[in-house]
Amino acid sequence: MTRWRLTVEYDGGPFMGWQRQDHGPSVQQAIEDALSRMTGETCAVHAAGRTDAGVHALAMAAHADIAKPLTPHRLREGLNALVRPHPVSILAAEPVAHDWHARFSCVGRRYLYRILNRRAPPALDRGRVWHVAVPLDADAMAEGARMLVGRHDFTTFRSVHCQSDSPVKTLDRFDVRRAGDEIHIEAAARSFLHHQVRSMVGCLALVGRGQWQPDDMRRALEAVDRSALGLNAPPDGLYFVEAVYPDA
Amino acid sequence: MTRWRLTVEYDGGPFMGWQRQDHGPSVQQAIEDALSRMTGETCAVHAAGRTDAGVHALAMAAHADIAKPLTPHRLREGLNALVRPHPVSILAAEPVAHDWHARFSCVGRRYLYRILNRRAPPALDRGRVWHVAVPLDADAMAEGARMLVGRHDFTTFRSVHCQSDSPVKTLDRFDVRRAGDEIHIEAAARSFLHHQVRSMVGCLALVGRGQWQPDDMRRALEAVDRSALGLNAPPDGLYFVEAVYPDA
Repeated sequence: MTRWRLTVEYDGGPFMGWQRQDHGPSVQQAIEDALSRMTGETCAVHAAGRTDAGVHALAMAAHADIAKPLTPHRLREGLNALVRPHPVSILAAEPVAHDWHARFSCVGRRYLYRILNRRAPPALDRGRVWHVAVPLDADAMAEGARMLVGRHDFTTFRSVHCQSDSPVKTLDRFDVRRAGDEIHIEAAARSFLHHQVRSMVGCLALVGRGQWQPDDMRRALEAVDRSALGLNAPPDGLYFVEAVYPDA
Repeated sequence: MTRWRLTVEYDGGPFMGWQRQDHGPSVQQAIEDALSRMTGETCAVHAAGRTDAGVHALAMAAHADIAKPLTPHRLREGLNALVRPHPVSILAAEPVAHDWHARFSCVGRRYLYRILNRRAPPALDRGRVWHVAVPLDADAMAEGARMLVGRHDFTTFRSVHCQSDSPVKTLDRFDVRRAGDEIHIEAAARSFLHHQVRSMVGCLALVGRGQWQPDDMRRALEAVDRSALGLNAPPDGLYFVEAVYPDA
């Protein structure tokens, strides 16, 4: 039995999310089904993050245990052939130690959020960005974002469905920058609460519109109260960018 | 009657191309139908370039004559509401002189070609890039591209369906650069022959693979013979980027 680390890109649009569901397609199921057809084994695939419906990944980390002898090349090429027509691509496959775990060994997660900030709706990036038609003040958003960096109780930015033991997390990075017509928001932490990035981005958009002052981000945080939440940003603009591991 | 200049972004994937066809959807028809519903008039829309099936546009220039009085804001917003669900977005609408013509006034056209050069197929950019799995030598491609810059008879790189009066064109720019996993090729000229960019890019890919030497680009050009053509690159990676006008 070999434990394989997989690096996976996917378009979250057609999926109910990463995790296998009874009521619709999931990224996990797409990969597990392709693996079963390839190996004849029943393989469970575990990921560093369980992204929601519509959330994309540039490089999700995952692992699976496979008995059949395979080379990295054959595993990657075979999976990519069998996972079609799902918009999922295995970027890399490599053998790892048996105690390596995509979720529990992960010490850092990085997300990107893309806002398309122009009057006209997206044609090419439909489903890949959050379209905000009113002009946003990226500098004010950056100032608001800085209020959340550090170790805090993020209860305000937590979904009711969150299964995390504690609402206390350390946000290592939360940067906002304008890139042409887009505003890019990068968030990095050891781990995030459910809906945390989308909740924080939704509030930042209120700051960008001038409905909130940058300091209102701090007030919302310090309220430690979900009813202080302004707005949850849609999944379309969210990308899982990177999972960090100790030896990587 | 006002002549309006429109700037249009579109995803070429679901269309037979820019130009209205009897046998399938076109970008032209999508915009003309939306205009008719908005104004009650029969409006013809003319574009700077008639892109092929599957070719995208970041900012196609077009024009239409409309009798109904409109503001730029109302025209753009109304068209964007009515053109749905087609992946077409009107970025800008502005009144222009009656003798301004999107196609005949245009003095420069710029295209981008995106090659995804990695083993794994695209998940997020499916239909938006040409996937070439074998490693390409971008430096050799850049050297080959330089052989085509200038005023030449481009018969080798011309489709049999080309309606241009002359195969002699001046290629102002033809640049190749690596951008991470991608290779970006930019082409600029006053005008191009039918399939010219895709034909030139297809040959450059042969250079990138080492099947052609950079100098074979010059030999193909000097052959002035379509049978010297190596390979036509698929439409997926091609984007109309910009139309240039004298006063712009």
